[in-house]
Amino acid sequence: MLLRKAQEYRQRYGVELRVVSITDITGTAHSQDGIDLKLALERCRRGVIDYPGAEEMSGVDAIREIEAELVVEATPSNIKNGEPGMSHMLESFRAGKHVVTSNKGPLALEYWKLVQEAERRGVEFRFEASVGGAMPVINLARETLSGDRIVGIEGILNGTTNYILTRMTTEGTSYETVLREAQELGYAEADPTYDIEGIDTASKLVILANAVMGMRARFGDVKVRGITRITPEAVRLAKERGYVIKLIGEVRDSRLEVAPRLVPESHPLNVGGALNVAMLECDVAGRITVIGKGAGAIETQSAILSDIISIARRCGG
Amino acid sequence: MLLRKAQEYRQRYGVELRVVSITDITGTAHSQDGIDLKLALERCRRGVIDYPGAEEMSGVDAIREIEAELVVEATPSNIKNGEPGMSHMLESFRAGKHVVTSNKGPLALEYWKLVQEAERRGVEFRFEASVGGAMPVINLARETLSGDRIVGIEGILNGTTNYILTRMTTEGTSYETVLREAQELGYAEADPTYDIEGIDTASKLVILANAVMGMRARFGDVKVRGITRITPEAVRLAKERGYVIKLIGEVRDSRLEVAPRLVPESHPLNVGGALNVAMLECDVAGRITVIGKGAGAIETQSAILSDIISIARRCGG
Repeated sequence: MLLRKAQEYRQRYGVELRVVSITDITGTAHSQDGIDLKLALERCRRGVIDYPGAEEMSGVDAIREIEAELVVEATPSNIKNGEPGMSHMLESFRAGKHVVTSNKGPLALEYWKLVQEAERRGVEFRFEASVGGAMPVINLARETLSGDRIVGIEGILNGTTNYILTRMTTEGTSYETVLREAQELGYAEADPTYDIEGIDTASKLVILANAVMGMRARFGDVKVRGITRITPEAVRLAKERGYVIKLIGEVRDSRLEVAPRLVPESHPLNVGGALNVAMLECDVAGRITVIGKGAGAIETQSAILSDIISIARRCGG
Repeated sequence: MLLRKAQEYRQRYGVELRVVSITDITGTAHSQDGIDLKLALERCRRGVIDYPGAEEMSGVDAIREIEAELVVEATPSNIKNGEPGMSHMLESFRAGKHVVTSNKGPLALEYWKLVQEAERRGVEFRFEASVGGAMPVINLARETLSGDRIVGIEGILNGTTNYILTRMTTEGTSYETVLREAQELGYAEADPTYDIEGIDTASKLVILANAVMGMRARFGDVKVRGITRITPEAVRLAKERGYVIKLIGEVRDSRLEVAPRLVPESHPLNVGGALNVAMLECDVAGRITVIGKGAGAIETQSAILSDIISIARRCGG
């Protein structure tokens, strides 16, 4: 994506982006003049970093030793101890490097520790991609709606469960059938526990509560119920009465809750497929609703790119 | 509103806001130490500026002579020649003062002239409040979605016509009846031409095309049809087939058009009452939809406050 966009950003913003290093689990590619992204992309498809000159260097070492202004941290979310993302972020701050991340785990566990460490080191720390995929919500609330105080948030923050519930509603099939099909299509993870048990939604809710409402919330504060006990009968009964069942995350009056809920068909929270939605209750603007794709390999890069651009424009690209 | 929010902004952003002058059609109040907003508000209710020491000074003179960093231009929109807003804005730029405005007229007529003049003078020029009331769209597209290119916009940008069409749909009454009631409730203007003929929507569409899509659009480029010929029969027929009639503004492939359109009931553009909605077609994020109140004395201040905060944070409050 960056390959395609680099020239556009240069023209639109005068921002010059250069990727000097890429690390995956097998090693680190590095070129101070800028990595040839086309070549890197081709070679990456084989599943290892075999870019010319790539070496066995860990993420932490790469962050520490390679000269760069900004680190994009995109390792998988880990809600147990946040690793390896947590170490990557803290090491980046220590090295005076800005961080853009899509990684929920460290933020859901240690939001304020991370934010304060970034502040102390005088670097930027942005994480729009950690919540809602392509749907803007953190930066929307904190920057676009900076004149408002957000007093409550309600939303659908997980695309996989929304996809499952939508198909259960339209087709009347069971939860297990839809899940299996979703897995075969590569749409749900082989281990879908985080999604269907509501853990993914709860992590995102904690991030929103802290980042957007200034709370001191932790993952353990969220009351969580997933969608595993939703039967086709429940879905059908709801439908007969003009309702749909949705997995809703809500934060209000310092209560955080994730649970399946009945939503009227005409309600703004009734978005289908893998869409995400967030309703922000603002003290001046009233209710602002935003809808966008919660998943998708291309779409979710939007949030990372916007965060990079924001930092480059503020700190001089 | 500012009265209530000033302390919050000081704490949250370290931004100190002081209103040193207020001008209305009858004159100008001025106090370099800061106007007593509570007193000004009480006295304003009588319809004239009778704040202690207020004098007969025009807006242009006030902008030129009174020391201030930022001007909020909130005179009524004039789509014929943009005055008096146009002169206020240009005079502010000349005086090196940032401008925040809710005034569509000058922007719909001379978008690039204004933007370039502000740039040339090195001042900020923000106008979120000119489109969509409390619904964020300009700053959302330009800042929150800065990594994306917006390739198309479709939306409901006028609260009054949406209110009229929604009531025609739910109650089956005629256009004239609903309009008269809306006027009696103070909801529609005594002269509702701008709203019902689609002129207000067209002005906003031009602003979006320029500000968000980088076009060189002018008001005359918009193909405009209003809602005056929508009959209760048309509304009923649409409803029977699962559609609603909405006044939609659309810009795509350098075509700008405002017209009543059939929208499927379950479509994201089907928002009721006086709500506004904008669907942004993004090259990376896909479709992003935002919904918010298009009108309301309190709500629409949200956009002005956010623009002021943005400038204060960027330029040092």
